[in-house]
Amino acid sequence: MTTGASPRLAAAATAVAPGGSVGRVRTRTETFDTPAAPFRLECGARLNPVTVAYETYGRLAPGRRNAVLVCHALSGDAHAAGFHRGVPGERPGWWDLMIGPGKPLDTRRYFVICSNFLGGCAGTTGPASIDPATGRPYGPDFPAYTIGDQVELQARLLDRLGIPRLLAVIGGSMGGMQALEWAVRHPARVAGAVALATAPRLSPQAIAFHEVARQAIFRDPGWRGGRYEAADPPRAGLALARMIGHITYLSEEAMVRKFARRGGGTAGTGGFEVERYLHHQGRRFVDRFDANTFVHITRAMDRFDLAAGRGSLEAAFRRAACRFLVVSFSSDWLFPAALSEEMVRAMRLAGREVSYCEIRTHQGHDAFLLPGHRMGDLVAGFLDRLDREAT
Amino acid sequence: MTTGASPRLAAAATAVAPGGSVGRVRTRTETFDTPAAPFRLECGARLNPVTVAYETYGRLAPGRRNAVLVCHALSGDAHAAGFHRGVPGERPGWWDLMIGPGKPLDTRRYFVICSNFLGGCAGTTGPASIDPATGRPYGPDFPAYTIGDQVELQARLLDRLGIPRLLAVIGGSMGGMQALEWAVRHPARVAGAVALATAPRLSPQAIAFHEVARQAIFRDPGWRGGRYEAADPPRAGLALARMIGHITYLSEEAMVRKFARRGGGTAGTGGFEVERYLHHQGRRFVDRFDANTFVHITRAMDRFDLAAGRGSLEAAFRRAACRFLVVSFSSDWLFPAALSEEMVRAMRLAGREVSYCEIRTHQGHDAFLLPGHRMGDLVAGFLDRLDREAT
Repeated sequence: MTTGASPRLAAAATAVAPGGSVGRVRTRTETFDTPAAPFRLECGARLNPVTVAYETYGRLAPGRRNAVLVCHALSGDAHAAGFHRGVPGERPGWWDLMIGPGKPLDTRRYFVICSNFLGGCAGTTGPASIDPATGRPYGPDFPAYTIGDQVELQARLLDRLGIPRLLAVIGGSMGGMQALEWAVRHPARVAGAVALATAPRLSPQAIAFHEVARQAIFRDPGWRGGRYEAADPPRAGLALARMIGHITYLSEEAMVRKFARRGGGTAGTGGFEVERYLHHQGRRFVDRFDANTFVHITRAMDRFDLAAGRGSLEAAFRRAACRFLVVSFSSDWLFPAALSEEMVRAMRLAGREVSYCEIRTHQGHDAFLLPGHRMGDLVAGFLDRLDREAT
Repeated sequence: MTTGASPRLAAAATAVAPGGSVGRVRTRTETFDTPAAPFRLECGARLNPVTVAYETYGRLAPGRRNAVLVCHALSGDAHAAGFHRGVPGERPGWWDLMIGPGKPLDTRRYFVICSNFLGGCAGTTGPASIDPATGRPYGPDFPAYTIGDQVELQARLLDRLGIPRLLAVIGGSMGGMQALEWAVRHPARVAGAVALATAPRLSPQAIAFHEVARQAIFRDPGWRGGRYEAADPPRAGLALARMIGHITYLSEEAMVRKFARRGGGTAGTGGFEVERYLHHQGRRFVDRFDANTFVHITRAMDRFDLAAGRGSLEAAFRRAACRFLVVSFSSDWLFPAALSEEMVRAMRLAGREVSYCEIRTHQGHDAFLLPGHRMGDLVAGFLDRLDREAT
């Protein structure tokens, strides 16, 4: 267990608190290669070997009670905080505003872990990985994993890292689905669960957006039924899928504030700023994401239903034993507050202790990735209470 | 001027009132072929000849004061009411619930006209029409027309039909944009304007959805820069464009009511009912719509801004002289009620008389095409008042 940061940088980061950086970090991997006991998925498929990419920040305390697992969203990765290269202008990890000395996930107190999910394309085994049975990428044949399978792989990682129980599991969007699944699936291993901008299941509208995004990929001739070469992926389709997705991550008001109708004349062929922004987002995405991975992960999200096989949402939460913090955002129309409220009612009926806050913001679904609201304080307070109870 | 219905059927329809059918109708065309005075567009381009497809229902009264122009939406056509073939199971025109004897647009009182818009692909000159200069379809070279140009072609049609002034112009969505433009552009020719589920300009979010839909077409290899053969269009891209659009025409609640999460298992590759519904809508669309037409019309909608070149929205409405009825729908997130409210405030500041109603419904943007709410009564009452004032 290391902080991931070099001693010099870690010391420097600590000196910057409150709100400092974890400094320079690197992504590590753990590989589970046990042919006799392969990793089994809910669908019955088996995977061996399985590699997990992860980063850690802070130090595991002697009693091992200060671990916080961060679950990233669809397009995230294990690099949640700090810097990989430490060069000027480098963008920090995707949740750097939340993780670091003096930040809500205070690395002076907590040992923070973030791993790329099962089925990902940023170091963890997924559709772009080589299938040892064929010597070629799994591609479309990668098994139809579930959010529960992702949790099981995270649990294996924690076993390997020697962490019997999490102080908290925390995630936004798909990461929030994992946090909820953790709470219900492994009640003895979770003291607190934080579900941000998420839901116990997708709405049919969200499924519809996923499907049109997938169709953008399938209709790209470069898709080749998912059997494209890594160097020649269905770029146009994947970029369009991301453009569609990106609309749903913002709100109407956020778009009005960000773009208004700038850039469009009264004649010509468009050229509105909002169009250029989406094209930019689409192009950026194809450089770091894989099309088969996108198809699989959106389907896993579509199928996720915390209540399925457990009787009801209330019955599901009866299995849990942790405290919950649920945060929704008023302008998030992809994971609307109403679904969080339904979930919170079920938690309460199940006898769970839950804090719920709907944060009023124009930022839409992406709000959990952005500064400018109370989420950080809510998470910090929730963790502080769990930590004081644990020690 | 004819009713469009045969005397026998018209008589039969009258007997069915209230709420009867206009009976059997057919789409007619008028062609303007005056090489010396071609149809001029705002962008400076000229078109000759120009054909307009239209239908009429009811009878023009001797004083010619009972004409109501219906403006259709993006995917509509001139066939607004009644039946073309009169065979069992045939679907009536797209606004049959509103037009007919005893219906809100009561064909016993009003002479109703509906024409396919300039740039359309259902009989009126548009990108799929033959450019006489080349002998081939205009395709991507069709001029970048405006909502104002569409109004001018409708005005030519009314001239040809001998209608100096409309009792009312009425439309939903893009048709509502035309109705607003009519009121501001030709104040002497309009006694009343009805704007349903529309806006004086699109939001950046709506523009964003249009752009991803266009990109679905552009990224289909069958697009060929818009120079596809009519028999070999970019079907996959156009279908996907429609699937994207269709999500925006419904509301989240409408989708929950209509589909919930039915059809999806906890494993497998999806197959949710909402996905099948979208695929069905996509397939249907390609049989009746043209890709170049879609690209052009969505761009015309994107560029539409009633205030542009007129100082402000208020200044624009100072040019108008008619009464207005504005109706928005609470769950319409493509043309949100807030934009209607902004428009109504501008109308009032400009001294216009306006009735405004936000109808509470889960039906989303498509509500103006559907029964089950008060819109019909509001329109009927508005027309009745205009009619009594006129006679």
